[in-house]
Amino acid sequence: MTIKYELIKKSTETNARLGKITTPHGEIDTPIFMPVGTRATVKTMTPEEVKDLGAQIILSNTYHLYLKPGHELIEEAGGLHRFMNWNGPILTDSGGFQVFSLGDLRKIREEGVEFRSHIDGSKHFISPEKAIEIQNALGSDIMMCFDECVSYPADYEYTKQSMERTTRWAQRCKDHHKDWDKQGLFGIVQGGMYRDLREQSVQDLLAMDFSGYAIGGLSVGEPMETMCEVLDYTTPLLPEDKPRYLMGVGTPDYLFEAVIRGVDMADCVLPTRIARNGTAMTTQGKIVIRNAKYSKDFSKLDPDCDCYTCKNYSRAYIRHLFNVDEILALRLTTIHNLRFLIRTMENIREAIKNDNLLEYKDEFYKNYGYSED
Amino acid sequence: MTIKYELIKKSTETNARLGKITTPHGEIDTPIFMPVGTRATVKTMTPEEVKDLGAQIILSNTYHLYLKPGHELIEEAGGLHRFMNWNGPILTDSGGFQVFSLGDLRKIREEGVEFRSHIDGSKHFISPEKAIEIQNALGSDIMMCFDECVSYPADYEYTKQSMERTTRWAQRCKDHHKDWDKQGLFGIVQGGMYRDLREQSVQDLLAMDFSGYAIGGLSVGEPMETMCEVLDYTTPLLPEDKPRYLMGVGTPDYLFEAVIRGVDMADCVLPTRIARNGTAMTTQGKIVIRNAKYSKDFSKLDPDCDCYTCKNYSRAYIRHLFNVDEILALRLTTIHNLRFLIRTMENIREAIKNDNLLEYKDEFYKNYGYSED
Repeated sequence: MTIKYELIKKSTETNARLGKITTPHGEIDTPIFMPVGTRATVKTMTPEEVKDLGAQIILSNTYHLYLKPGHELIEEAGGLHRFMNWNGPILTDSGGFQVFSLGDLRKIREEGVEFRSHIDGSKHFISPEKAIEIQNALGSDIMMCFDECVSYPADYEYTKQSMERTTRWAQRCKDHHKDWDKQGLFGIVQGGMYRDLREQSVQDLLAMDFSGYAIGGLSVGEPMETMCEVLDYTTPLLPEDKPRYLMGVGTPDYLFEAVIRGVDMADCVLPTRIARNGTAMTTQGKIVIRNAKYSKDFSKLDPDCDCYTCKNYSRAYIRHLFNVDEILALRLTTIHNLRFLIRTMENIREAIKNDNLLEYKDEFYKNYGYSED
Repeated sequence: MTIKYELIKKSTETNARLGKITTPHGEIDTPIFMPVGTRATVKTMTPEEVKDLGAQIILSNTYHLYLKPGHELIEEAGGLHRFMNWNGPILTDSGGFQVFSLGDLRKIREEGVEFRSHIDGSKHFISPEKAIEIQNALGSDIMMCFDECVSYPADYEYTKQSMERTTRWAQRCKDHHKDWDKQGLFGIVQGGMYRDLREQSVQDLLAMDFSGYAIGGLSVGEPMETMCEVLDYTTPLLPEDKPRYLMGVGTPDYLFEAVIRGVDMADCVLPTRIARNGTAMTTQGKIVIRNAKYSKDFSKLDPDCDCYTCKNYSRAYIRHLFNVDEILALRLTTIHNLRFLIRTMENIREAIKNDNLLEYKDEFYKNYGYSED
């Protein structure tokens, strides 16, 4: 197996764990937050800048790259790493989530999903085999099985059928993937908010022995307690010697709760998306930098931040840039937000090492809680 | 005087000259191309990136900064250098060009110009004194006198009146500027395409003794031969111990012709603007990178380029980024175009040193001439 997980330390007070994942393009310290580079670029940033933030792995998107520029073109370019000039580990999602959330007029069959492109309406068909074929062409270090992420809320019967189909698709993905020395493949646990379905999903996927396991179908609009509950009964079922990846989580509070419940990896477009809308995440809560009250605020975005933006620019300058639609505004805020989450995860790893994660969490919340705009 | 020009070498075959300008924020090798940072940012770039291109001075814009965020705010921030995190020399234009080209419903009086903001229609009045006041607040190294740049074509009578008013305004600018140790001030030669008016303008401005002299009112739509003719009879009238700045020139051919006629400094938004529209300047001519023919072209933008973009990315990747509206596309092409012009000017300086500028020009044109899209 090309993907190896090494457990370094377990928290005594929570289910959090410190670990290391080995991939063909380098090692990853876990728990980790993965910046998202949907279309073969982390929006607004160069790969060198992403690396300078402390990012160790990025995520890219099968559905989007399949439509544009096409996976064959990327394969011809020498694979995604070379195409986009990122030589660290890359995880690609399976396209399932986007097919279901972006594709128009989708028809789900046992064979796969027929849909129309959200760009030009053209007709496409993605099967589990096709999802693997695309990801093989991209050459990512970690691939994901093609799955259906049911929306929230969903009834028991539909969730059950969908989870069972996702399991059958996982088997087909596994059968279709050949070069396990080059790329790992994760199974995705589904089953909505139903404990017996989650248990069934885990049990069936474990029998197939994947490189790691993702927990899908969370962070889809359910209350945080529901997510925590699902994690509480799901994560302990996953094997200790494989990485666990919670899909679509990217706010500090959700990251804390996930890590405490044994999650190793998470990703989300949120920090980069809100950055481009002018919202900065800081140790003192979120600030909407466009607000007039920052027009003569010559302090940095976050007094406790070590990022390029906070070292060199004032809130007043960044607000001005947003105010006149300058691209540097988007860059500076993106750098800051990603560094904020990555540094928070660095602190979380340090806290697990020192076995004081709950203490660090309390301290973090005490600061983060107030002064939300 | 805070601005000093040192003549290093004169070309024997042309009027080109190699020199060095000293400013409060450092030295500038001339002839030089100055990237434009209209709104306190060179569009898409950080100051460090601009410096890495070899840029030694940038230009910023009085009219735009006066409207947003306001010159008082920038003064409060510690001046433009500190506000935008650029510690090299800055030249600010006087706002004249934008008042006339962007301001709505402008009324020109002897006192100054009344106009409405192109952003929100608010009413403003800029006089020569006000233009200096704004530039004093910005703290640029080189300020420009408030002038009127007449459009092309313009009749003799209007051009004469306008030039004479610009001269009277120059005197008022000079009288209003106090701290000559901190900031230099350039006079702007006007007079359209009329030789006697240009001569009159030069004569009157020289009597006032500015830090340097700009040639305005060119590159406004006239044929290249007309510009060359005006430079042919204007530049020799300017003093040898002061820098000469041709405003608004930024294509390689115009830069060659200007330098050959004794110009030391030039600026233009063109390289950055066409970059954002997907056009790259290369040693083999311009290429429109959005074109389908580059979709599988894995070569670099320019085979002879040493920029970050050409070192790391293919045409196919940059085309993909444009195709999916990614900001990195604008960044990579901007970096390339600016580096292209800056490197061309480096080569021009080297050629003046070796006294083979005309030979270098022929060689440059031979390559640049073909393969325009």
